[in-house]
Amino acid sequence: MAKGIPKRSENYPIWYQELVKRADLAESSAVRGCYVIKPYGFAIWEKMQATLDKMFKDTGHSNAYFPVFIPKSFLSKEADHVEGFAKECAVVTHYRLKNADNGSGVVVDPDAKLEEELIVRPTSETVIWSTYKNWIQSYRDLPLLINQWANVVRWEMRTRPFLRTAEFLWQEGHTAHATKVEAEAETKQMLDVYATFAEEFLALPVIKGSKTESERFAGAVDTLCIEAMMQDGKALQAGTSHFLGQNFAKAFDVQFLTKENKQELVWGTSWGVSTRLMGALIMAHSDDDGLVLPPKLAPIHVVIVPIYKTEEQFAAISEKANELKEQLQAKGITVKYDDRDTYKPGYKFNEWELKGVPVRIAMGPRDLENGTVEIARRDTKEKQISQFDDVETKVPELLDAIQQHIYQKALDFRIANTKKVDSYAEFKETLKKEGGFVLAHWDGTVETEKRIKDETKATIRCIPFDAEEEQGNCIYSGKPSNKRVLFAIAY
Amino acid sequence: MAKGIPKRSENYPIWYQELVKRADLAESSAVRGCYVIKPYGFAIWEKMQATLDKMFKDTGHSNAYFPVFIPKSFLSKEADHVEGFAKECAVVTHYRLKNADNGSGVVVDPDAKLEEELIVRPTSETVIWSTYKNWIQSYRDLPLLINQWANVVRWEMRTRPFLRTAEFLWQEGHTAHATKVEAEAETKQMLDVYATFAEEFLALPVIKGSKTESERFAGAVDTLCIEAMMQDGKALQAGTSHFLGQNFAKAFDVQFLTKENKQELVWGTSWGVSTRLMGALIMAHSDDDGLVLPPKLAPIHVVIVPIYKTEEQFAAISEKANELKEQLQAKGITVKYDDRDTYKPGYKFNEWELKGVPVRIAMGPRDLENGTVEIARRDTKEKQISQFDDVETKVPELLDAIQQHIYQKALDFRIANTKKVDSYAEFKETLKKEGGFVLAHWDGTVETEKRIKDETKATIRCIPFDAEEEQGNCIYSGKPSNKRVLFAIAY
Repeated sequence: MAKGIPKRSENYPIWYQELVKRADLAESSAVRGCYVIKPYGFAIWEKMQATLDKMFKDTGHSNAYFPVFIPKSFLSKEADHVEGFAKECAVVTHYRLKNADNGSGVVVDPDAKLEEELIVRPTSETVIWSTYKNWIQSYRDLPLLINQWANVVRWEMRTRPFLRTAEFLWQEGHTAHATKVEAEAETKQMLDVYATFAEEFLALPVIKGSKTESERFAGAVDTLCIEAMMQDGKALQAGTSHFLGQNFAKAFDVQFLTKENKQELVWGTSWGVSTRLMGALIMAHSDDDGLVLPPKLAPIHVVIVPIYKTEEQFAAISEKANELKEQLQAKGITVKYDDRDTYKPGYKFNEWELKGVPVRIAMGPRDLENGTVEIARRDTKEKQISQFDDVETKVPELLDAIQQHIYQKALDFRIANTKKVDSYAEFKETLKKEGGFVLAHWDGTVETEKRIKDETKATIRCIPFDAEEEQGNCIYSGKPSNKRVLFAIAY
Repeated sequence: MAKGIPKRSENYPIWYQELVKRADLAESSAVRGCYVIKPYGFAIWEKMQATLDKMFKDTGHSNAYFPVFIPKSFLSKEADHVEGFAKECAVVTHYRLKNADNGSGVVVDPDAKLEEELIVRPTSETVIWSTYKNWIQSYRDLPLLINQWANVVRWEMRTRPFLRTAEFLWQEGHTAHATKVEAEAETKQMLDVYATFAEEFLALPVIKGSKTESERFAGAVDTLCIEAMMQDGKALQAGTSHFLGQNFAKAFDVQFLTKENKQELVWGTSWGVSTRLMGALIMAHSDDDGLVLPPKLAPIHVVIVPIYKTEEQFAAISEKANELKEQLQAKGITVKYDDRDTYKPGYKFNEWELKGVPVRIAMGPRDLENGTVEIARRDTKEKQISQFDDVETKVPELLDAIQQHIYQKALDFRIANTKKVDSYAEFKETLKKEGGFVLAHWDGTVETEKRIKDETKATIRCIPFDAEEEQGNCIYSGKPSNKRVLFAIAY
């Protein structure tokens, strides 16, 4: 067990919070609800960004940048959007400070009050659609496929690193199309991109589905999502893709001339993932000894730790270690040779376990004699002795095996913790005793959903795409239902 | 001359402004002083970012992310810093909106007033050094070499796209060191990184030097800079690197335990370049027909334009064009085949010239018969006929030649427009008639510098590193001086 961090079984929320801090991922800042993302944590986020960015570009999207400020009146232009986003947000009211008369520092200059307040963007649909009005005149300007990497602010009262923070980093795609069919296909395509990314890179199995009306993005006609299970059985929404219909086109009067020379409103989508994925990554795979990182997103793949008593031994081991490092680097593997002389091997082992480095190679004087090293994998803690010459082929195989294994483990866990229930009593019992995902019939009404939430804290995470047609009765109202939806307590 | 854009000689500021808009680089937004960076402009910025980011990492730096908000009181902690930055800035005073009682939209909720106002970061020294206090305890924690890519806000009254905007994108490096010597070396190293980037990628010759006291960064002991000449003879500061001494360590009480077990204050640096480099790029190389982009930063290297009358011709040309495209792409060259049937070749030629694509290949039916293409370079407008088989080798050579040529052209221009003067009369005459850079003796006082500025608008851009030791007299006061400094009117 990592020092100063409780076991998951003892206190899962504190385990998470301490792990984030002690593995050098993030820490709280002087500003309430805002976190500092530390270099090691940011290196993981950069790998996520690079991978996603390529996937977006491969599907035809370009990046652009829109202002961080949104005029207050813009938020009111789309009726549902204003209800969802014009609430807890950072409001800029003044544009100047001045020296305090009493010399106590600086104060807001009352003469520098803005005519209209500016909101620090909680999401950018409004400012982007107000721009699209100028960019779209004819069908030739469509589709418009744009993404933005940006910081956004939502004034959350209760925050947790990565999962819910006042400021967070994300990407937001905003596309405009000539037809409904095309916009719907885009919405679906981007959800698939997210699901592929989650499963292949985060090693995180996800369930794809649609949100119910009450969980939908404010201003969307339909919200698609991917939902993942964390190790405490709770659900985490890992990405959303919204079909906006013509709502924002209507709000900002974005019309285009069709091939047939008619004026029509444009169809839109928006989709985003955020640094929340960092939280998902940590909570899905890590154990009581620290992080377990999927090799595809680990900033360091392999750490080599020398074990020695004399300077001569250290020199001889270092020579071999640097040779191995170069061999592995030539294969695109990131290697850290931990030659610090201020720490003992045991300390280093713990530190790199805490930081989730997938593979550790240890090398001592006897290894050097025998031409061997000890290779340990982070996920299962298994160790093996390997000949020098085999390291080059064994390590890449091991990295692949770890990536596969942690995915499979997370999938097995989710399957084991997903139950079908057919009565409300069983539903409550399951949530209380086992947690996890519950598949149950629901009558399709907002009222029932709300009552279940109020009574159990469970929400409908999604209506899974792969839900089978099946006649049944709503666990709450008894009314007929033709498929099961996914309930869970969520982050 | 590009449609709707004046010649540089007619109106340089409007030429710049219109070019930015019409070449699809950026446009103004609904928020005063904030610009939208359009996909084509952002693609250039992304190339700059990727190149710089690699240079930073190659010199040992890691990225991290710090909050966008700074508590108002932080700005006052460093005495000079507050004078420089706690003025025109965006102030967040409230954290909630509510529906207006009269149904007119949303209003600021007076109950949601922040206890302490938050400033949208104009630069991050204060919030970063307040964090470093927790990260640095011992000499083992040093050096700390961190960079952040971020948006910053300075409430500028008169804005111009890329050059001076209320919000802009930049990177800010913030490093902490155990010794003065090490921090000074870092300051110098990062200036060299900027100079190398400017010269090798932007194709922009720069003069390296130190700022005078009055042009120094607020809170720095010394500010180093690179200065470039634009085509109107004005200077543009393209990057700065600051030696902070122990100023911020003192302000935020950041001390470390030395190897000798003593508590000492940490030494700091900070350095940054911004989307202002986009302005430099545009103004240094572009002409009356539009952008001229250095191949190393051009989003598209080669555009192929088909010239045809019949569908059969179009099909035959397209086949060959796609073949050439693949050959070039295999060499890492980005190629656009402009097969739009809605525009004529002449229109396309103008459009790609406006957008600064370095190489254009045109192909018509006769070319197809002869096995040739016409290759035109954007910078000199020279055309040549090339055999199909030669395209693969000629294009990369041409891209290198263009990169070299526009650098040399900018350098020749700067040399031709840099004058040594020895009297104030000559100084004023030169600035008035020719503009450009003026090398002159100065007595080293803030008073003289200010008077010259008030009377001529010229400022001391820097004290060049390579200024020769030379006895002379200040052009203004007549007092002795031992080297010339660089004066110019600046952006």
